[in-house]
Amino acid sequence: MAGSTQGVLFRVHTWGESHGGAVGCVIDGCPAGIPLDLDAVQRQLDRRRPGQSSLVSQRKETDTVQALSGLSTDGWTLGTPISLLVPNKDARPGAYSNLQSMYRPSHADFTYQAKYGIRAASGGGRASARETVGRVAAGAVAEQVLTAWFGVRIVGWVEQIGGVTLPQDAVAEALITRSQVDAGPTRCPHGETAAAMEGEIVSARGDGDSVGGVVRCVARGVPPGWGEPVFDKLEADLAHAMLSIPATKGFEVGSGFAGTRLRGSAHNDPFVPGPAGVPRTSTNFSGGIQGGISNGMPIRLRVAFKPTATIFKAQDTVTEDGEATTISPKGRHDPCVVPRAVPIVEAMTALVLLDHALRQRATTAP
Amino acid sequence: MAGSTQGVLFRVHTWGESHGGAVGCVIDGCPAGIPLDLDAVQRQLDRRRPGQSSLVSQRKETDTVQALSGLSTDGWTLGTPISLLVPNKDARPGAYSNLQSMYRPSHADFTYQAKYGIRAASGGGRASARETVGRVAAGAVAEQVLTAWFGVRIVGWVEQIGGVTLPQDAVAEALITRSQVDAGPTRCPHGETAAAMEGEIVSARGDGDSVGGVVRCVARGVPPGWGEPVFDKLEADLAHAMLSIPATKGFEVGSGFAGTRLRGSAHNDPFVPGPAGVPRTSTNFSGGIQGGISNGMPIRLRVAFKPTATIFKAQDTVTEDGEATTISPKGRHDPCVVPRAVPIVEAMTALVLLDHALRQRATTAP
Amino acid sequence: MAGSTQGVLFRVHTWGESHGGAVGCVIDGCPAGIPLDLDAVQRQLDRRRPGQSSLVSQRKETDTVQALSGLSTDGWTLGTPISLLVPNKDARPGAYSNLQSMYRPSHADFTYQAKYGIRAASGGGRASARETVGRVAAGAVAEQVLTAWFGVRIVGWVEQIGGVTLPQDAVAEALITRSQVDAGPTRCPHGETAAAMEGEIVSARGDGDSVGGVVRCVARGVPPGWGEPVFDKLEADLAHAMLSIPATKGFEVGSGFAGTRLRGSAHNDPFVPGPAGVPRTSTNFSGGIQGGISNGMPIRLRVAFKPTATIFKAQDTVTEDGEATTISPKGRHDPCVVPRAVPIVEAMTALVLLDHALRQRATTAP
Amino acid sequence: MAGSTQGVLFRVHTWGESHGGAVGCVIDGCPAGIPLDLDAVQRQLDRRRPGQSSLVSQRKETDTVQALSGLSTDGWTLGTPISLLVPNKDARPGAYSNLQSMYRPSHADFTYQAKYGIRAASGGGRASARETVGRVAAGAVAEQVLTAWFGVRIVGWVEQIGGVTLPQDAVAEALITRSQVDAGPTRCPHGETAAAMEGEIVSARGDGDSVGGVVRCVARGVPPGWGEPVFDKLEADLAHAMLSIPATKGFEVGSGFAGTRLRGSAHNDPFVPGPAGVPRTSTNFSGGIQGGISNGMPIRLRVAFKPTATIFKAQDTVTEDGEATTISPKGRHDPCVVPRAVPIVEAMTALVLLDHALRQRATTAP
Repeated sequence: MAGSTQGVLFRVHTWGESHGGAVGCVIDGCPAGIPLDLDAVQRQLDRRRPGQSSLVSQRKETDTVQALSGLSTDGWTLGTPISLLVPNKDARPGAYSNLQSMYRPSHADFTYQAKYGIRAASGGGRASARETVGRVAAGAVAEQVLTAWFGVRIVGWVEQIGGVTLPQDAVAEALITRSQVDAGPTRCPHGETAAAMEGEIVSARGDGDSVGGVVRCVARGVPPGWGEPVFDKLEADLAHAMLSIPATKGFEVGSGFAGTRLRGSAHNDPFVPGPAGVPRTSTNFSGGIQGGISNGMPIRLRVAFKPTATIFKAQDTVTEDGEATTISPKGRHDPCVVPRAVPIVEAMTALVLLDHALRQRATTAP
Repeated sequence: MAGSTQGVLFRVHTWGESHGGAVGCVIDGCPAGIPLDLDAVQRQLDRRRPGQSSLVSQRKETDTVQALSGLSTDGWTLGTPISLLVPNKDARPGAYSNLQSMYRPSHADFTYQAKYGIRAASGGGRASARETVGRVAAGAVAEQVLTAWFGVRIVGWVEQIGGVTLPQDAVAEALITRSQVDAGPTRCPHGETAAAMEGEIVSARGDGDSVGGVVRCVARGVPPGWGEPVFDKLEADLAHAMLSIPATKGFEVGSGFAGTRLRGSAHNDPFVPGPAGVPRTSTNFSGGIQGGISNGMPIRLRVAFKPTATIFKAQDTVTEDGEATTISPKGRHDPCVVPRAVPIVEAMTALVLLDHALRQRATTAP
Repeated sequence: MAGSTQGVLFRVHTWGESHGGAVGCVIDGCPAGIPLDLDAVQRQLDRRRPGQSSLVSQRKETDTVQALSGLSTDGWTLGTPISLLVPNKDARPGAYSNLQSMYRPSHADFTYQAKYGIRAASGGGRASARETVGRVAAGAVAEQVLTAWFGVRIVGWVEQIGGVTLPQDAVAEALITRSQVDAGPTRCPHGETAAAMEGEIVSARGDGDSVGGVVRCVARGVPPGWGEPVFDKLEADLAHAMLSIPATKGFEVGSGFAGTRLRGSAHNDPFVPGPAGVPRTSTNFSGGIQGGISNGMPIRLRVAFKPTATIFKAQDTVTEDGEATTISPKGRHDPCVVPRAVPIVEAMTALVLLDHALRQRATTAP
Repeated sequence: MAGSTQGVLFRVHTWGESHGGAVGCVIDGCPAGIPLDLDAVQRQLDRRRPGQSSLVSQRKETDTVQALSGLSTDGWTLGTPISLLVPNKDARPGAYSNLQSMYRPSHADFTYQAKYGIRAASGGGRASARETVGRVAAGAVAEQVLTAWFGVRIVGWVEQIGGVTLPQDAVAEALITRSQVDAGPTRCPHGETAAAMEGEIVSARGDGDSVGGVVRCVARGVPPGWGEPVFDKLEADLAHAMLSIPATKGFEVGSGFAGTRLRGSAHNDPFVPGPAGVPRTSTNFSGGIQGGISNGMPIRLRVAFKPTATIFKAQDTVTEDGEATTISPKGRHDPCVVPRAVPIVEAMTALVLLDHALRQRATTAP
């Protein structure tokens, strides 16, 4: 138990159920003396919240963040725990009451019941994507430290939805900004592909069905030296962070599974002289990490999201008593979680990178 | 720093460089009263060691394990730390001496130097695959507890090498045994595919080149309830463990990246009544985990291994002083690490599962 | 950094400054299925809060606890993080404004400034005893699990204030209850001694001065087997917990410092046959712990509290600019924190014991 | 379980039983680039080992340390885990065989059996003071980093044995060196007192009995800012470390229990202008720590050691079957462990201080 902590030095503890009074997080280990921009935190929460477009859940939540501790009266971090809270406004327990006695397929109802012997009466409880509010808020704090101290910039986007994939080289990866990503509701920075993705989602929604997809995330400006072999390699902690996001099924760094089909002579990244005597690589199959440690090139990763488990079609399942039955869910849901997952992936990337930045600082000679 | 610990309750600390005196591990938190079969530990080490077939590195190591603590005189676990040690016998520092002053492409030479300001003089030091000796030894201990207490069985095999992939349904996954896997040097349990894989490796070796591949691993008998949301979900800890293995680039659980192309109606796993009133699912796209918690179905995962970075071809790189140069490695190496990775993936799976088994026990009512 | 977590499996994260909006805690790892009595939590908070008698700080706080997550609608623990919050009602930043530019002697003003480069503008911030609200709330939750699952009972009392000490054998230690302890404002369960202690506090207050003292705590019903050698011995974790309480200067288990003057023949605790074949000891110099592990006898410990640093006398100090000056504090304070420390010591005892109870369960054979 | 790790960033894992093949430790998180002086490590081990004077156990152990990993060929730390091993040479299991079936009073026989259901067949196993070999070796490594990077100096000595106490102000605490401490076998740096202490030990030994005592330890040169409120305060982690040493019963920082008898006006440490604009205090009742954070003054602590449990007198006890019996131990033992405890207390102090030094570095702005 006790699995709700992320990080060793920049530690985030999240709490809250989907239909409880609030969700939130406590950030322990945030460096002192950072002028915290709560508006920037709110902006990332706004990118995550439901109701932001017609493609996602219509639950009405403003997701307004409150800071309860850890800040000076003028908003500087004190180095003490930062407690952030977001009230739940539009929880509708009643909408789910008919589902209480049966296990929704590919949801966490059964496993929570099996593990704890009890589960939240409605709304998915802790297994709901609403849990990610605390992650996004904390990640937005981490990003500000990463930017202020190290110049790191993180940007994520949607690379695939259902059968629609962003063509390789369709966009200049090194230049993508969050504004470009947010130009459309699918968060794919390539207009033509974005339109096709939107069609995929609308079609699934029309069928009472759902689709999955892939989020790409890139972190630029990470200096060489972050990552702690042999178990807390940078890619290992990134994989851990990403697979902890609800609905994820896979993770790739650099060349990923496709790289396994190459020969070493094609896959090795040649070193070339770089600025200030620091070598760089002319390709980046390594995804910015070698031997578990950042090498100064952009960190590149991908995360697979399964199709949303909530669909409005009849499905076979069993009751809590183990009897076969049929379930036909109703309520609010996302036909595709992938666009809303972008700020979550960015947040988890930020949490891991800052934690490793601090871990590396710890053993740097004074 | 301090990244060489795996697990929360079943904690493994590994140590050792490739060309130092020995490698090993300390296991803290092993339950007491288990009759430890050191021969079984040795068998897994034998499956990992170099020189076991013509396809892998010809470094001569017997990899004989010594137990220094934590056992009673008749071999039962005492509940105290178990210290396991494997001497390095055939380290040949000289063979690498010409490479000291340049960074080998896609190796960890540069990143270790950047992080620590110093690196082991030869053989890859801590970044060498030799580091995995401690993992395999510890994993073999974990497996014995998993089997004795919970009836869990783990088996891994090679599913892809270079362009050769085990056809879906070519083997009955639920029945594969380690003996079948070990029938040939590639560790693919399907003869025809195995032969093609062997060709792939031999061809790459002949070219002084290397190939990558994919290891599949399945754990059967895991009861519902293991996994600690929201960050230490079972798949998150598995992803962490797998991406900490040298040369890995990707991880999938259940349907993985392929599942992102399905609709929810095809991807959801319907529950059906199971034995003893415990529901099971009729499909297993979830890979045995839902909401971060095991659901009683087989845990299914895949790990991507890049082509070995050591190849015998001239490559561009830079010297420690940042000057462009060409490198032409010599020495011993594996043209493909994937067959030897099978016991490593099994070991990491065992370490994660036992850790979570104990975490779940901790909050079970007495 | 990141030092605001207590425990390995029953993990408590506290947050909040003295003059911020609220204080609170997040409990991660609480077993599921416990019917949580929030009134009992409130009762312990009431024993800690200021204003409860004329002997303590007159800050007006109702310290009303709110539960934001982790509970079912009918109040059972879900196994998920429990977020508890207590608003700050009577913070008076203005009362301290004249002290902003100088370091109060034996307070944490200077060290927080030195460590973080910034500090909360008033009220002691995170170093205030107000921080212990979260500890007491969490400890009261832990106590309920300890009682429900293991039958453990914890009781603390004041054993010394200034020069007044509870005479040995004046009370029957094995029978003391919290009601007896709460009979008077000093929380010493021996009327005559309590009266003398009260005189000591009143006298110090009259002089604008303060006094220190000692809290004794006993835990009954702890079964043999809790404690994790060699570093997380039960007494080591208790010492850690106690010395983390503000104003503490010492810790003893069993015979403590006095025991160092005895010979082994007088100090050893002879084993005698006990109920159900479990041996007990005829004396308890060990304080219920041997080799770092509970032996089934009552856990006995003592904690030293220094005299309150806030006094209303002129004292030498320096300004933030390092200039010599004189300080004459005003405001509200406790002339003696020891009576209010009793529920805090009980809380920390409960947190450590439950954490170790769960750690021991983790490796108990299923 | 899994309690054999000390520290968060400078992490030490110890292993080994008294009568097994060896004892040792793995140090994870040691900064890279430190020229490690293994002779200095050996010197501290020599101060701990048995047989060094007629006052202590005559077990013959050279305690020669071997470094198996983590060092470059010329002895610099690589930043990777350092594995240190000390063989057991003079284990005599036979000498204890008559004690196997009964529980030695105030030893850990019963509690280990109760916890683990099994225990090492002889010599106290993991509960033996022999376990501290790994601590002393690791502490000696930590000291070298503390000295090289921060200029910290640690020195401990014996302040009390049985009824003999070093008179206050008998020695100039600020000037005591390890050479002075080692001038006599009792490790009390005041000749007259040392002689009386020696008499106390010889007398107890003559009676087949034992005596306890107190070790004082001082760390000079610790800069302001180390310590992580609110749970990992510097004194809390020191208390944890000290109470994890075998045979300890109490811990004091600064004024300790005696300070509880003072009034605040006498106990507060006035700040005075110090060198380089950093204030110092004119007294040091705080023991160098305020609010859980070092203030730049010497860290001062005391540790209580009970009289050795092994005595050569008949004592009441019970057998493993719960029957009353009498035990009359034979073998080798220390009539007083306190002199040998000095390097152990120093080691634990070093481990805690370096861990906190690194934790503080982690959040220092780059």
